[in-house]
Amino acid sequence: MGNTFGQLFRVTTFGESHGGGVGVVIDGCPPKIDIDISDIQRELDRRKPGQSKITTQRQEEDICEILSGVFEGKSLGSPIAILVRNKDARPDDYVDLAKTFRPSHADFTYQAKYGIRNWQGGGRASARETIGRVAAGAIARNVLRRFYPKIDIVAYVAQVHEIAAKIDKVKVKRSDVDANIVRCPDKAAAKKMTQLIEETRDAGDSLGGVIECVIRHPPLGLGEPVFDKLDADLAKAMLSLPATKGFEIGSGFSATRMRGSEHNDAFEMRGGDVRTSTNWSGGMQGGISNGEDIYFRVAFKPTATIAREQKTVTTSRRSTTIAARGRHDPCVLPRAVPMVEAMAALVLCDHALRQRAIVPEK
Amino acid sequence: MGNTFGQLFRVTTFGESHGGGVGVVIDGCPPKIDIDISDIQRELDRRKPGQSKITTQRQEEDICEILSGVFEGKSLGSPIAILVRNKDARPDDYVDLAKTFRPSHADFTYQAKYGIRNWQGGGRASARETIGRVAAGAIARNVLRRFYPKIDIVAYVAQVHEIAAKIDKVKVKRSDVDANIVRCPDKAAAKKMTQLIEETRDAGDSLGGVIECVIRHPPLGLGEPVFDKLDADLAKAMLSLPATKGFEIGSGFSATRMRGSEHNDAFEMRGGDVRTSTNWSGGMQGGISNGEDIYFRVAFKPTATIAREQKTVTTSRRSTTIAARGRHDPCVLPRAVPMVEAMAALVLCDHALRQRAIVPEK
Amino acid sequence: MGNTFGQLFRVTTFGESHGGGVGVVIDGCPPKIDIDISDIQRELDRRKPGQSKITTQRQEEDICEILSGVFEGKSLGSPIAILVRNKDARPDDYVDLAKTFRPSHADFTYQAKYGIRNWQGGGRASARETIGRVAAGAIARNVLRRFYPKIDIVAYVAQVHEIAAKIDKVKVKRSDVDANIVRCPDKAAAKKMTQLIEETRDAGDSLGGVIECVIRHPPLGLGEPVFDKLDADLAKAMLSLPATKGFEIGSGFSATRMRGSEHNDAFEMRGGDVRTSTNWSGGMQGGISNGEDIYFRVAFKPTATIAREQKTVTTSRRSTTIAARGRHDPCVLPRAVPMVEAMAALVLCDHALRQRAIVPEK
Amino acid sequence: MGNTFGQLFRVTTFGESHGGGVGVVIDGCPPKIDIDISDIQRELDRRKPGQSKITTQRQEEDICEILSGVFEGKSLGSPIAILVRNKDARPDDYVDLAKTFRPSHADFTYQAKYGIRNWQGGGRASARETIGRVAAGAIARNVLRRFYPKIDIVAYVAQVHEIAAKIDKVKVKRSDVDANIVRCPDKAAAKKMTQLIEETRDAGDSLGGVIECVIRHPPLGLGEPVFDKLDADLAKAMLSLPATKGFEIGSGFSATRMRGSEHNDAFEMRGGDVRTSTNWSGGMQGGISNGEDIYFRVAFKPTATIAREQKTVTTSRRSTTIAARGRHDPCVLPRAVPMVEAMAALVLCDHALRQRAIVPEK
Repeated sequence: MGNTFGQLFRVTTFGESHGGGVGVVIDGCPPKIDIDISDIQRELDRRKPGQSKITTQRQEEDICEILSGVFEGKSLGSPIAILVRNKDARPDDYVDLAKTFRPSHADFTYQAKYGIRNWQGGGRASARETIGRVAAGAIARNVLRRFYPKIDIVAYVAQVHEIAAKIDKVKVKRSDVDANIVRCPDKAAAKKMTQLIEETRDAGDSLGGVIECVIRHPPLGLGEPVFDKLDADLAKAMLSLPATKGFEIGSGFSATRMRGSEHNDAFEMRGGDVRTSTNWSGGMQGGISNGEDIYFRVAFKPTATIAREQKTVTTSRRSTTIAARGRHDPCVLPRAVPMVEAMAALVLCDHALRQRAIVPEK
Repeated sequence: MGNTFGQLFRVTTFGESHGGGVGVVIDGCPPKIDIDISDIQRELDRRKPGQSKITTQRQEEDICEILSGVFEGKSLGSPIAILVRNKDARPDDYVDLAKTFRPSHADFTYQAKYGIRNWQGGGRASARETIGRVAAGAIARNVLRRFYPKIDIVAYVAQVHEIAAKIDKVKVKRSDVDANIVRCPDKAAAKKMTQLIEETRDAGDSLGGVIECVIRHPPLGLGEPVFDKLDADLAKAMLSLPATKGFEIGSGFSATRMRGSEHNDAFEMRGGDVRTSTNWSGGMQGGISNGEDIYFRVAFKPTATIAREQKTVTTSRRSTTIAARGRHDPCVLPRAVPMVEAMAALVLCDHALRQRAIVPEK
Repeated sequence: MGNTFGQLFRVTTFGESHGGGVGVVIDGCPPKIDIDISDIQRELDRRKPGQSKITTQRQEEDICEILSGVFEGKSLGSPIAILVRNKDARPDDYVDLAKTFRPSHADFTYQAKYGIRNWQGGGRASARETIGRVAAGAIARNVLRRFYPKIDIVAYVAQVHEIAAKIDKVKVKRSDVDANIVRCPDKAAAKKMTQLIEETRDAGDSLGGVIECVIRHPPLGLGEPVFDKLDADLAKAMLSLPATKGFEIGSGFSATRMRGSEHNDAFEMRGGDVRTSTNWSGGMQGGISNGEDIYFRVAFKPTATIAREQKTVTTSRRSTTIAARGRHDPCVLPRAVPMVEAMAALVLCDHALRQRAIVPEK
Repeated sequence: MGNTFGQLFRVTTFGESHGGGVGVVIDGCPPKIDIDISDIQRELDRRKPGQSKITTQRQEEDICEILSGVFEGKSLGSPIAILVRNKDARPDDYVDLAKTFRPSHADFTYQAKYGIRNWQGGGRASARETIGRVAAGAIARNVLRRFYPKIDIVAYVAQVHEIAAKIDKVKVKRSDVDANIVRCPDKAAAKKMTQLIEETRDAGDSLGGVIECVIRHPPLGLGEPVFDKLDADLAKAMLSLPATKGFEIGSGFSATRMRGSEHNDAFEMRGGDVRTSTNWSGGMQGGISNGEDIYFRVAFKPTATIAREQKTVTTSRRSTTIAARGRHDPCVLPRAVPMVEAMAALVLCDHALRQRAIVPEK
């Protein structure tokens, strides 16, 4: 009962990695928003498996179909349902998994929680589940652009293992991100990352890293204290993605080593607006956006699926070992970039609608 | 419209720093739970201002009153309302604030969002708002103990500025935490932290740090993928606390520098149970608790209120400067420990009820 | 866990008939709305016991206090908490009830559901619980008037037992309703109703009846299909009031005996607007308001508390008899009029905010 | 944003009458429930158009496909998505509707609310939308039976226009209901109803009526006061169905003409249980089920679509007339019987899960 995200722009995803398909129902999309299926497909293509030599070789075209809620290219205000069929499902590849819990996967916890699981691949815990999120995120982005034409959401790989990129988050463009297969806009770092990912894959191992996201020209006044603060909802959104282990807004953990006199963002007048001279806060105070760039970082763990043999136990509680065969991502970050952007767009879109409902009259 | 937390154990807080009072309504507390007002008061006392030389000297007794939902020492199943009156309110201290935005406070964003704000102190953005959370957390803890008698939630200060404590999270006891005013169970570190906080306060500045929390003997199977994963809800809970900038579950950001072969938690049989031999995951996989200790870290920024003069602007958009007078915490961490525990208890209690609703029959 | 009403204008009530008090927290009230405590008190006075010879003689002043969310007479956008203390509580009057289930009261069902109940009066099932609703309704009305200055919500007693009033719902004014103690604007019927209520009370018995409510000059376009249709939410709101047994929107059950050719409301142009020439629909189609007057009827059963001896059982499951002593309403309808208006205002206010969030641009 | 029903057993429907299809996502179905697609199809067949001479002749097979959430015949605990494709869509039949508002249809209100509408048929306001509800209801019924094997939900046509059936609600069986095409278990009345419906259709007109529903052997203790009372949620569920105008629980409006001494349901011991000797309450007190049969009545208006010419206006606000061509139901009641049952099952299932979450320990 946790498959819906958002209060007004409500996204409900469904589907397992194997079975009929995966998808999403969006309830609360404002009417008369331009909905172009190619906008959705473009984001799904950035997420899809098999897109480069450093991702899993599972072949899924991930072609989406809009089932409802759109008429003559515009949203109707009714629920928008989007479906992507599962194609390259090879349940036979997974027969071993019926009886073995993969380390650091959710096999054991799903079995413990539900007393049953679809052992054909990751089931509901598969990253394939994020297709619905990415599709919904593409629509959320269109809604945001309608209300705030200059808004710009860009995520990128900022670190893979020990390799940290140098990126100017004020200027980085989406085309820079997509210019290489690792989705790191620092070309030199990207090259090293790609090489390290290939070496690690060949060694039967996997890597983690950090994705950074910046939201430029965000609206002022989004966020609903005290629980639905904008940073709180972003944190939840990001930690709900598979393989995430941490979240930082603005200065993040580095703030813990600063003094107030260093960390406070002084206000100043700039271009007729109240602005801050620094932006350690990451674009919000008290959980409400202040109009400065919003930026945050998300930690991803190394992929749990590795080719090396690992100790584990069977469903009948005997010790055994397991080694992944076949197709998996040695590093999830390149494909996680559109997921981070999608979740950011969902959070902002939902909060934009919430603010519209109560916006004070002048 | 963001003042309610939880799906089944629903907590709604109310109140500003100045005005009639602050409090909470808890809807969904199971019936027949022991409710002892002294359990609640004890937690409020750990949170209250003026409790030691390193906290703000605002004097508030923070005496709570239970208005409803309890009969003869037991919960009725109806809403439990708890009220704490504001006492030591000195609105005159804040007259300057009516016309000036304090840097890195929420004065500006509240004004921008709502078009109005209570400028007498922090208003709704004051940490005083957390009284309702802490009171509710005390009740959540009782509910959890009723279902899982061995569960144990302990938070502590793990770092202040550059001073990092050494703490064995498997063994640390609550009495160790409360043994000193900084609430750091590493005595040597605590002494240094206290000294640094005092020096910093005297220098008109402030400090941040890290609070760590461990949940031992948690139930297995809590968490509602794909959005209401246990770690996602903990992240939201923590980022909804004032002054927080980051969250890590288990290995957190350090996972990004590990390989899968290092980070994966191998399963093994132990004491007849499926257990993991390491616990980088922090007690959950796929957002569902696996029965291991849950642990996480929360980054707090340095207090925004400092005595030093800072640049800022007025509500009429002119440049000015401001320096805090009077009472404030030079470091919020000692008083934030019960807040972190309370939010952790709220998340677990809510998820425990959610799991009870669907628990599979044997 | 069912003590919150509304999606954006969220009302959470608390309190039992005996204990500290009853009240409400409103989360989602837009900022800068005029909040005058006398508006709230006026509605509470219409609801309070002891207001006339035909209501219960329990004496409660029901003086309300605003604890939060209001500053200098305006809403802040933060939660508005309102408290009314219980005063004339005589728990000793109810000692018998500790061990006996009153027929057609909720004593037995609360005990069965929760395994515990506050037997001092009706506990949470007491109509005293509606104080929070009525207070919140007064604020909802102010919000509605701010957005739609001409909106007018008037409820009145349309029938007591067999006595049906003749009332022109297009014209009836609130002052006509409050002109007599039974709150029926048909003077002749009101006189008969008052007399019947007195006779029935003296005979140790009780009466039911019908309250009708009309909302004039409502906004066009409120209601959120397919589940949160405006009529569906009104139905829920009304059936959530104590002692209600039925709801009709527009033509109601009489529609079942009409043909489509009679019942359909033809559209016509009037005053430049699309209007309907009849209004059997009751002001909405497909669950969305069409701009015509909204009207509905609510059935109230005869008060369960009667002085006559009735058969029942004890908590230890033995047969016994019971007869109410003391104070109760022989007919709840006069005091239920402000409750019906309050719930109608809550539904409309919530839907007005929901519509503002998605309103299509021109 | 009103397309989700339920708190724990959450049903989100999607789809318009014309377009890709209609369907539902169920989030919160407990795991390990038997899911047999033929159970779902059977209910859809009871709802489908073209099933008899007295329903619309639109031909839709309404074959459903389960897309997710089921594995080897059991629910997984993850969302269950069900899709029914639209087949016999003839948008050309509706070209006239692009520019004309049909009287007592939702064409005008959808246009006013959203600023856009799918004019090909009823769009989202079509009764075709209820397919998702009926499919979800079939699953809810299975969940209920798992927890309460004896529970029995039976709805039937109790009245068409002036023809009222005589039915013993304590005994009526589902096979009696489905024994004739009008779904009225009183054979003599059914015959008259069928004849009247045919005559009325031939005269280009339409009829309304009453559906009654009884829930036998319901669990004790369901319902969440004070807003989510069981009767309140049933009222909302029923009024959210197309063409409904009224709801009565138990005695309903007839209660308004009874005295307390007649209407109160005396408690007595029966078979070792606390039972009531009468059941005017309709199986609940204070909004919580008392273990007696739950029964309620729903008023349906005559179908808005009629062949006769009616006055109306165009979208460009000119007077015109309209007469329906082609396919429509002269009386919706026979096909609405499974809809009423489905909504009743959804309400009970949701409340059953809610009660499981807080059930007091013995």
